[in-house]
Amino acid sequence: MKLLYPTSLKLDVPSLEGFSVELKPYDVKKPIPEDLIDAEALVTWTNSAENLKDAAARMKNLRWIQSLAAGPNDVLSAGFDTSKITVTTGSGLHDRTVAEHALGLLLNAARRFYEMRDYQLQGKWPGHLGGPQPDRPAGAFTTLRDARVLIWGFGNIAKTLTPHLLGLGAEVRGIARRRGVRDGIEVYGEDSLAELLPETDALVMILPGSDSTRHALNAERLKLLPKHAWVVNVGRGTSIDEDALVDALEKGEIGGAALDVFETEPLPEPSKLWKAPNVIVSPHAAGGRPQGSEGLIADNLRRLRAGQELKNII
Amino acid sequence: MKLLYPTSLKLDVPSLEGFSVELKPYDVKKPIPEDLIDAEALVTWTNSAENLKDAAARMKNLRWIQSLAAGPNDVLSAGFDTSKITVTTGSGLHDRTVAEHALGLLLNAARRFYEMRDYQLQGKWPGHLGGPQPDRPAGAFTTLRDARVLIWGFGNIAKTLTPHLLGLGAEVRGIARRRGVRDGIEVYGEDSLAELLPETDALVMILPGSDSTRHALNAERLKLLPKHAWVVNVGRGTSIDEDALVDALEKGEIGGAALDVFETEPLPEPSKLWKAPNVIVSPHAAGGRPQGSEGLIADNLRRLRAGQELKNII
Repeated sequence: MKLLYPTSLKLDVPSLEGFSVELKPYDVKKPIPEDLIDAEALVTWTNSAENLKDAAARMKNLRWIQSLAAGPNDVLSAGFDTSKITVTTGSGLHDRTVAEHALGLLLNAARRFYEMRDYQLQGKWPGHLGGPQPDRPAGAFTTLRDARVLIWGFGNIAKTLTPHLLGLGAEVRGIARRRGVRDGIEVYGEDSLAELLPETDALVMILPGSDSTRHALNAERLKLLPKHAWVVNVGRGTSIDEDALVDALEKGEIGGAALDVFETEPLPEPSKLWKAPNVIVSPHAAGGRPQGSEGLIADNLRRLRAGQELKNII
Repeated sequence: MKLLYPTSLKLDVPSLEGFSVELKPYDVKKPIPEDLIDAEALVTWTNSAENLKDAAARMKNLRWIQSLAAGPNDVLSAGFDTSKITVTTGSGLHDRTVAEHALGLLLNAARRFYEMRDYQLQGKWPGHLGGPQPDRPAGAFTTLRDARVLIWGFGNIAKTLTPHLLGLGAEVRGIARRRGVRDGIEVYGEDSLAELLPETDALVMILPGSDSTRHALNAERLKLLPKHAWVVNVGRGTSIDEDALVDALEKGEIGGAALDVFETEPLPEPSKLWKAPNVIVSPHAAGGRPQGSEGLIADNLRRLRAGQELKNII
């Protein structure tokens, strides 16, 4: 058996040995070389569309694709025969990086670092943002202490983010398709949104991209948020109706939006999000660097060899 | 006995009752009214220099001043007879707010939110800061995970900040006058700086303002930091030699500086810090909102009535 691993990131290859499998590096931006075309397993990371299309057409022995991306849309749209090939995702490899970025965006919003920056660039001291100030005033998002944070999409990233928020004193609740208590956090169904959004100081969206999540945060739901509430999105841009968001921001119906993902990326030049009030534009920078890939690959390789079900099957 | 409390912040006055003490509000920006001049206890917060000078001259029965500031330089320089009057500080009331701000500044630096903002203002997508990127590359401060954070000035704020850093995966060490293990963190003396600074990705300064801390971070010590290291200051501006800092930044000898305090505040217009590369200017915004003042006042009031030593004596 032959497994191809990408040279587009640093991997500790020796930690994948011991399964009587040939481990071969390959270039994710070029066609698969002739001598690797018989491989049964393919690990992907930032592959070009051409590379994947080529692999789908020529790799007739392929049984398993391990993507290191959390949402491997690139693999799924390349034309692989998924009746024969098991595709597994990199879910879990981005939890800590995305959670850290989300925490940073929340603090950026609460502590208004973006506004301080605007003053700094003009050589002006933003005195209104410093010095003596009210402690946790009602109707403002100024700190995570006692802030009511609602996380929409309560998977691994939410579970990783939550302890940091609790540690800073926030109250955390979740929204997900499957309701229940997870890691001590009450997770509600989407039918509770009408009740929960009005009690939210910061809404953190961590929804995957799919037809069912498209424009999940729409005009109607934006109107349910308090005027001071912030929206943070580190999931997929399609989960927010951006026109409705711009409208809510321009009318002052919400406090602000810190966005790492957008309906179209890079964010197009004509987008009103660039200049809408209290918007923080982050260039899909939350993840992008899988951590612990070797552990997942080795685990799935062992499962494959043992005839067991793989982890993170799509 | 009469205690004067300031109207410059919201206090839960009923929680101070029960000590057979008359609790009287006063305006911190005006002279003390005639009928309050006989008070024995004074709580201060953002008092004007004139108010304090007036109080020092006219309040002959004063035995105790409770400042809600962590470093009550205003009270100490007003001319009170400290041979008769016990001054206690608001140490501890700012731990959580300052720690949260310091965490925000560290994430702002690591995740380069300030640089993203510069691009956003120009309507440009900073592609180099997003998408696939190396995970924890050597010679860069890109995340708190595995970052080596050195906290200089290891008091209550450092102890409050540390668990958040550890939770995100940082390695934390401390520097203080008194060495030893505190809350599980190894705290070294300043004689270890030459050894520790070269092993630091982020240096967090939380030193008080005093003659002994003036220019603690000077040209010589800045040179010991790695080229990618960031300096964060949420203590007092005088603890850094700003000319030496600007020089190090302009020469690329350190990675950047996120500063909430400055030698002169507001930061003067001619300061080179405004435009030096990779500087984040925050307008002394970390604290400024004491939390839990009532508990400290009540505790010290009880101690005073019981003839015990007060907390936070200067």
